[in-house]
Amino acid sequence: MKLTIVGSVAFDAIETPYGKTDKILGGAGTYISIAASYFGNNSNIISVVGGDFPEEYINLLKNKNVDTEGLQIKSDKKTFFWSGKYHKNMNSRDTLITELNVLGEFDPIVPDSYQNTDYLMLGNLSPEVQMKVIKQLKKRPKLIVTDTMNFWMDIALKQLKEVIAEVDVLVINDEEAQQLSGEHSLVSAAKVISAMGPSYLIIKKGEHGALLFKGDKIFSAPAMPLVSVQDPTGAGDTFAGGFIGYLAATDDISFNNMKKAIITGSTMASFCVQEFGTKAIENLSKEEINKRINKFTDLTHFDNFGL
Amino acid sequence: MKLTIVGSVAFDAIETPYGKTDKILGGAGTYISIAASYFGNNSNIISVVGGDFPEEYINLLKNKNVDTEGLQIKSDKKTFFWSGKYHKNMNSRDTLITELNVLGEFDPIVPDSYQNTDYLMLGNLSPEVQMKVIKQLKKRPKLIVTDTMNFWMDIALKQLKEVIAEVDVLVINDEEAQQLSGEHSLVSAAKVISAMGPSYLIIKKGEHGALLFKGDKIFSAPAMPLVSVQDPTGAGDTFAGGFIGYLAATDDISFNNMKKAIITGSTMASFCVQEFGTKAIENLSKEEINKRINKFTDLTHFDNFGL
Repeated sequence: MKLTIVGSVAFDAIETPYGKTDKILGGAGTYISIAASYFGNNSNIISVVGGDFPEEYINLLKNKNVDTEGLQIKSDKKTFFWSGKYHKNMNSRDTLITELNVLGEFDPIVPDSYQNTDYLMLGNLSPEVQMKVIKQLKKRPKLIVTDTMNFWMDIALKQLKEVIAEVDVLVINDEEAQQLSGEHSLVSAAKVISAMGPSYLIIKKGEHGALLFKGDKIFSAPAMPLVSVQDPTGAGDTFAGGFIGYLAATDDISFNNMKKAIITGSTMASFCVQEFGTKAIENLSKEEINKRINKFTDLTHFDNFGL
Repeated sequence: MKLTIVGSVAFDAIETPYGKTDKILGGAGTYISIAASYFGNNSNIISVVGGDFPEEYINLLKNKNVDTEGLQIKSDKKTFFWSGKYHKNMNSRDTLITELNVLGEFDPIVPDSYQNTDYLMLGNLSPEVQMKVIKQLKKRPKLIVTDTMNFWMDIALKQLKEVIAEVDVLVINDEEAQQLSGEHSLVSAAKVISAMGPSYLIIKKGEHGALLFKGDKIFSAPAMPLVSVQDPTGAGDTFAGGFIGYLAATDDISFNNMKKAIITGSTMASFCVQEFGTKAIENLSKEEINKRINKFTDLTHFDNFGL
């Protein structure tokens, strides 16, 4: 099965109560690609970096079976750079620096070899870029998953709604679901958003887990309770990567399999936050992942019962 | 199995974005008793009301198989009264009126017929009152569950810790767990609090569900996603009532059965919030409860899997 990932490949500099980094590897496309690589997929990435982007980072992606033909390198420009500082409770952060650089004029090009992709993951980028990718695909993928954020709801709502109308699974957080739908209840929000197009809606709730909605069906996955969270950066993207990676590998988009994909995404995200940047998800073993998946089973399962 | 419940029996006046009540039946002891009544228990209540408390409310409890010998009636005094107004998001509220009345000088008396109780539920009252009840029991119950709140941590921490050292299960919310332990991570908070005495800790997270901790074992239960929450008053007490009611009825305090008790508590709480006051939990059928329990199974269960 072919999996294509669209998302930023970038530099991050992060400060949390547990430490601080220099410029390190970051970007939604990076986290998604690495997380999706553990399930036996060869994936493709569509993104852009500048001449300052180290070859070792590109090799890191290649070593994860990511085809980088769709990764444009603008040698006379600089890579997207984001810097942020998390507050004490880790639930909120201040952006210190955003240098769009190459991302400001990103014109995604889908290589011929990426045509016939079965699974398309549109990471959080402008709806315009997301739509350009959809339009270039000659055959509609079996499943299109898209991530977005409140920023695009604020400045490009019309274009965002056009993208949402084209996709199968929308991934947003709880506040964004409330903003997009105008509803406080997440159940009501899901109904409103589903009517905009996507059959599936995933609402991420950070440390409180995630909800999957399809029609009247709801699945609730907790986040793994952890002793320490070092750095939440990329957790949402890593979740999305585990989710689409599991679906593409199993090639089954039933509600039952989506539940497992959500647990897989939650598993990968639970690793991600335990170290800074991509460090914790760069070299996981199958055994470590399976052990964490089993922990989710222990965490949530109870025997059937009734009065 | 004998179940004894200690908690306020009171008047509430509630305002939420969905409506407003006059003085209605309220109090932790009331919610706990009603919720616990659905599992085949005869229970006992230890509480106090004034001469203004209507006989119809006492009959409501009696009709739920609640023995009211331990419910003191101070005919020349007034019943505890609380009035509050919820904010738009329902997650916070302002207390408008607190008239302690009879509760201010409450001296709990355990009737002889309540001795040999197997299950003791100490609702949120002063640690002094909670300890007075524990001390009057000639035989230690099989399980003591206690609820408390940040108010007692602020003004009676020493006495509260003495109570906590005596009990098996402590029920508090996430912020209270952080306050009591001085730890931000709930996993770390659970370790610190368990060292204070209780084998089991339940951390309530409101709309995000509840966590059960025992040693290194954790169980996570979601709250039922609902289209509308009319009034959150009493949800935590109703949760506790469903929890202790299920445990007392099944007389099994294993971790596996506690999981089911947590789901039962969550089920009862999910009914509670759908109408004002105790209205939604006054006349539930076995079928309605079983149906809601099954919804929790659908909401959380996924098939075992691995890579």
